[in-house]
Amino acid sequence: MSDPYPQPIVTIDVVLLTLKDGELHAAVALREREPQAGQWTLPGGFVHADEDQDALAAAVRILREKAGLESPYLEQLQTFANRHRDSRGWSVSIAHYALVPLAEVERSGDARVKWLAVDSIRTLPFDHLEILRTAVSRVRSKTLYSSLPVHLMPKTFTLSELQRVYEQLLGSSLDKRSFRRRIEELDVVEPAPAGRAAGQAHRPAQHYRIKRRAGRELAMAERNLGIRD
Amino acid sequence: MSDPYPQPIVTIDVVLLTLKDGELHAAVALREREPQAGQWTLPGGFVHADEDQDALAAAVRILREKAGLESPYLEQLQTFANRHRDSRGWSVSIAHYALVPLAEVERSGDARVKWLAVDSIRTLPFDHLEILRTAVSRVRSKTLYSSLPVHLMPKTFTLSELQRVYEQLLGSSLDKRSFRRRIEELDVVEPAPAGRAAGQAHRPAQHYRIKRRAGRELAMAERNLGIRD
Repeated sequence: MSDPYPQPIVTIDVVLLTLKDGELHAAVALREREPQAGQWTLPGGFVHADEDQDALAAAVRILREKAGLESPYLEQLQTFANRHRDSRGWSVSIAHYALVPLAEVERSGDARVKWLAVDSIRTLPFDHLEILRTAVSRVRSKTLYSSLPVHLMPKTFTLSELQRVYEQLLGSSLDKRSFRRRIEELDVVEPAPAGRAAGQAHRPAQHYRIKRRAGRELAMAERNLGIRD
Repeated sequence: MSDPYPQPIVTIDVVLLTLKDGELHAAVALREREPQAGQWTLPGGFVHADEDQDALAAAVRILREKAGLESPYLEQLQTFANRHRDSRGWSVSIAHYALVPLAEVERSGDARVKWLAVDSIRTLPFDHLEILRTAVSRVRSKTLYSSLPVHLMPKTFTLSELQRVYEQLLGSSLDKRSFRRRIEELDVVEPAPAGRAAGQAHRPAQHYRIKRRAGRELAMAERNLGIRD
C-alpha cells in the first residue's frame, strides 16, 4: 500500500441479546489475548480478509466461533472509531447487534459465554459499555416502531406473549387493541397450524409464527406502537 | 502490532447534501490519486491517525479540505466494508452524511466540488452510488419523523418555507395544520426577531430560526409527519 498514513486497527464487535426472565441479557465472552486478556468482553475479533466476504459475514463468523450461535437477526449498529478506545492505537470497531430467542441460547448451551442482564452491567473493557448501551437503546427505539422484537420469540407464540415482550422491552404497558392493530399493520406474523391441545377444556389461544418472507427485513410502523387508536 | 491478519484499508467518505431548485443535490469532488484518479467521487480520504481524534473529526476535516465547507449537521451513516469495493483489497469506508444550507454552498463557492441532483446520478466510482443512495434514503426517512430538514434552511424562514422543504424531500404534499402541530411538538424552531419590512402593506409572515439548543441533536416525532390529525 502506498499511502503514507498508518492504518487503524479494524475489529468487529457484536452485542448479542436475548430476553430472559423479562429482561434483556447480553452475551459476554472470555477474552483470550492481550490487551484485556482474561476479561469478559463483547464477542469480537479481527476481520479475516481471506475468509470474510464483508463485515456482516465477519460478524456471523465471530458469533459462531465465540458464542456457538446463529442469530435470526443481525445488523450493523454503528462504528466506533477513535484514537483512545484501544491501547494499541487508533482503532475501528464496526459494531453489530443481534437478537436470539432464549430457546436457541439454551439449546446451544455454550459455556464460553455468559449472559448478563444489561441493566446490571456497570463496566466492560474498552468502550464496550458504550457499544452495549448504544445497542440496547437502538433495540428499544426500534421496538416502538418496528417488528424487531419478533426475533426474540420462540417458534410459535400467542399475541399476548408478543405484547408482553414489547412491554418488557419498553418498560411500559400497552393498550391491547392498539397493539394488535399495529401488529396487524406490520404484517409479519401469521397463524401457526394448531398444535395438539389435548385435555384442554377451553379453546387454546391462537399461536402465531413469523412470516417466512419477513426474514431479516424489519417492518416499520407508521405510528409509535405505544399510541392508542 | 502482533496480529497475523492483514489489516483492511480504512477511509472516510462523506455524502454532502443541499437542497437546490427544490431537489436534493450531492457534492462530488475530483479525485486526485489512483485508483480512480480524475474521476468525480464523494469527498473522502484516509483517517489521519496523528490529527483526527475520531471518525467524526476526520469527516469534518475532509469536508473542510475537499469542499471548503462546514456543515451544521453531520453524522455517521453506515460503514461499507468488504473485499470487493476497492481494487486495493479488503476495505472499510466509514460513511457519513451532512446537510448544508444552499446559502452556505453559494457563500463558499468552492470550485473543487460540483453539485449534482441526486436523482440524476446514475453512476459513481467504487460503491459511492450505493453510499449516496443509502444517505438519500436515510434523509428521506428521517424527514418523516424528525427535525432533520431544518438544517437545510437559511438563517430565518417561514413555516410555509419549512413545509415546502419537507414536501420537496418527501415528494408529497402535507396537510398544513398537521404539519404545524408536528413542528410545534418537535420544539426546535422559535420566532426570529422581526427584521425590517419597510413598505410592506401587509404584516409579513412570521420568520423562525433554529433554537440554539437544537444544535446537532435531532428531535424525533411521535408520529409520522405525513399523518393528518
